Amino acid sequence: MKAEIITIGNELLIGQVVDSNSADIAAELDRIGISVYQILSIQDDKEHIISALKEASSRANVIIISGGLGPTKDDVTKYSLCEFFDDTLVNNEAVLEHIEELFKKIKNTPLSDLNREQAMVPSKAEVLHNKYGTAPGLYMEKEGTVVIAVPGVPFEMKMLMEREIIPRLKEKFDRPFIYHKTLRTYGLGESALAEKIADWEDNLPEPLKMAYLPDLGSVRLRLSGKGENEDDLKRSVEAQLTKLYPLIEDYLAENVNDDDNITVTINKLLREKELFLTSAESFTGGEVAAQFTINPGASTCFKGGIVTYSTPSKIEILKVPEKLIEKHSVVSGEVAEAMAKNARKMFKADYAIGTTGNAGPKKGESDEEVGTVFIGIATPEKVFSKKYNFGSSREDVVKKAVNKAFELVLRELVKK
Amino acid sequence: MKAEIITIGNELLIGQVVDSNSADIAAELDRIGISVYQILSIQDDKEHIISALKEASSRANVIIISGGLGPTKDDVTKYSLCEFFDDTLVNNEAVLEHIEELFKKIKNTPLSDLNREQAMVPSKAEVLHNKYGTAPGLYMEKEGTVVIAVPGVPFEMKMLMEREIIPRLKEKFDRPFIYHKTLRTYGLGESALAEKIADWEDNLPEPLKMAYLPDLGSVRLRLSGKGENEDDLKRSVEAQLTKLYPLIEDYLAENVNDDDNITVTINKLLREKELFLTSAESFTGGEVAAQFTINPGASTCFKGGIVTYSTPSKIEILKVPEKLIEKHSVVSGEVAEAMAKNARKMFKADYAIGTTGNAGPKKGESDEEVGTVFIGIATPEKVFSKKYNFGSSREDVVKKAVNKAFELVLRELVKK
Repeated sequence: MKAEIITIGNELLIGQVVDSNSADIAAELDRIGISVYQILSIQDDKEHIISALKEASSRANVIIISGGLGPTKDDVTKYSLCEFFDDTLVNNEAVLEHIEELFKKIKNTPLSDLNREQAMVPSKAEVLHNKYGTAPGLYMEKEGTVVIAVPGVPFEMKMLMEREIIPRLKEKFDRPFIYHKTLRTYGLGESALAEKIADWEDNLPEPLKMAYLPDLGSVRLRLSGKGENEDDLKRSVEAQLTKLYPLIEDYLAENVNDDDNITVTINKLLREKELFLTSAESFTGGEVAAQFTINPGASTCFKGGIVTYSTPSKIEILKVPEKLIEKHSVVSGEVAEAMAKNARKMFKADYAIGTTGNAGPKKGESDEEVGTVFIGIATPEKVFSKKYNFGSSREDVVKKAVNKAFELVLRELVKK
Repeated sequence: MKAEIITIGNELLIGQVVDSNSADIAAELDRIGISVYQILSIQDDKEHIISALKEASSRANVIIISGGLGPTKDDVTKYSLCEFFDDTLVNNEAVLEHIEELFKKIKNTPLSDLNREQAMVPSKAEVLHNKYGTAPGLYMEKEGTVVIAVPGVPFEMKMLMEREIIPRLKEKFDRPFIYHKTLRTYGLGESALAEKIADWEDNLPEPLKMAYLPDLGSVRLRLSGKGENEDDLKRSVEAQLTKLYPLIEDYLAENVNDDDNITVTINKLLREKELFLTSAESFTGGEVAAQFTINPGASTCFKGGIVTYSTPSKIEILKVPEKLIEKHSVVSGEVAEAMAKNARKMFKADYAIGTTGNAGPKKGESDEEVGTVFIGIATPEKVFSKKYNFGSSREDVVKKAVNKAFELVLRELVKK
């Protein structure tokens, strides 16, 4: 049971857009036990699309092709499908009606000939209703291979996968069962970790496989297997994990498993304990708060946070003592601690993160090197700070610092 | 002059990690006139990697392969290269020394046999020094095709591309010149825009190509061409743009061109005019501030912002009148306006964004539907707000709202 994903778009090949669709599609397929053999990104080029379809159909049971269904001249996926399936386009009344409705309700602009063209679909295709967009999904079959085309707009693609495609694939194919569990570890590099568990890994039974996923300051370990019998597989994975835990217990974040992001883990722990987090950010510019609040349920453990990007805003709004800044400089552990401490009070929270540093590219107001950051943590018991240097890429410095800040909070939380 | 990119990693095929490396690599290659023909993502599987290398080398002058160079058992890229190039691994003293140094300086953990293994490289490979990591880049050649392997860690890959790979490729290959210009438009959908410029597009001279890039609430138009003569090409693109501008002037964001992100454009305009932006965020949770401050130079036009996620924090810290909230509900245009207005005062800024809404998945404290948001804008002249519904995906609601907020600010800024 193999699938392949083809994503279409010139913008992908010149690196203007990151292809997040294929990861979303792959995750959905993986969840129902369909393995993705490969992901291919190519241009809006009819010949290339057709040859990719031919090759993929010689290997895969399912091909999902995303993108190139728009109304403009550079969109050729529909025409490529017609050629591959030896088919022609026909007008679909239901799709046309839906497009007209969409334009009336949401877009509030008159319907154009190009939009009407979007109701033209291959005659052999089953139309998958795209509630949120004008390009429908298309479900086609040829010699046992299913080919499904979805629009490249991420939200529309996701809705189609969830509501139309996954149910059809579940119905059509007998699938092996896939099970995996992911653990998050801290404080050991990939190779040191691998060495620690080498014997265990060498003795893993056949269907199980270990993967190391380094992730800014931590390594996730994923143990996965595939089999016909769900219970056997789960039992086998869990039995191996029971042997693994004691080998890495010093480096394992408690309560972290599956694919939980670190902020989800913190969110769960805070809610269990009915505690609140807050943040006072300088160079991270709101990224701590944004990453934390993107998770559902954030409002039950986060009342707010502040971004004090300039020195005066740290003094005037967050009440960091001016003298402290003069004495230690604005990029210092003392200021990070004061920021965390004062935010904790300001937002009536239990835990607080304070960040100050130089993300670059220029040196800024302090003497510290680009990449040098201080993270302050305030808890009900104490206030402390740590110094790091996260290199010279502005985005990476912010990302790594935010991750490290969450790691420090998580460590405090699991101690309790 | 064609390149292909192969990214390696089981995590890509199960959708656990989004492949941003291929976009970064493609953008770097595009910048020096090397077109990427396709991007392929496959598992850490030796046979698959070798067959992908064989196929790619029959088409491409350059193959860049990313990932699978780590020290653990699931990393097989090096062994695949050896088989493809009929080569063996040999110890590289310089790499070993570098690994030892890295461990001493940064990692502060003892060197393991697995780490020492990373100094083993194919004997025919030129080693590309990876200052920041233990896996070196590898540069190899076979029958005119260059194969370059880079580690999958994004920061290390980027540094190697910039410092080692791009200079070598520039030196080695005669490349056509590529030129493109991207315009950002607002207020018209993809198809309406395409219709508006259909005649112009039909008459584009041969080497020029138009692409439509829908991007949450706006459409970017990219006009690109490839040619031997840089000046001719530039002149041709600019001449066509001169004809295009009057057709879309009502929908064009001023001062936006090339691949500038909307926040970069706002940043430039604010700095030119010596003005400051601030934000008071509820459901966007700091994302407005984070997206704005990730750009270099943000400190010259952004002093800070606040995230008031809970209703009490809106009242107590941001001083939104409790009565206003009682009267209009916390998710309302009135509250969005008050948030913007008060943040403008609090941070002594000229422009302010206020956001309040229901990002879902649950309904929250107000009667408004999930996806309903209000964006308030305060400027030196006025305060106003707009209501939107951005659907039911929490992440999309936040993304679209942040983008819309920047769009509203940009419109006010270009009016001046």
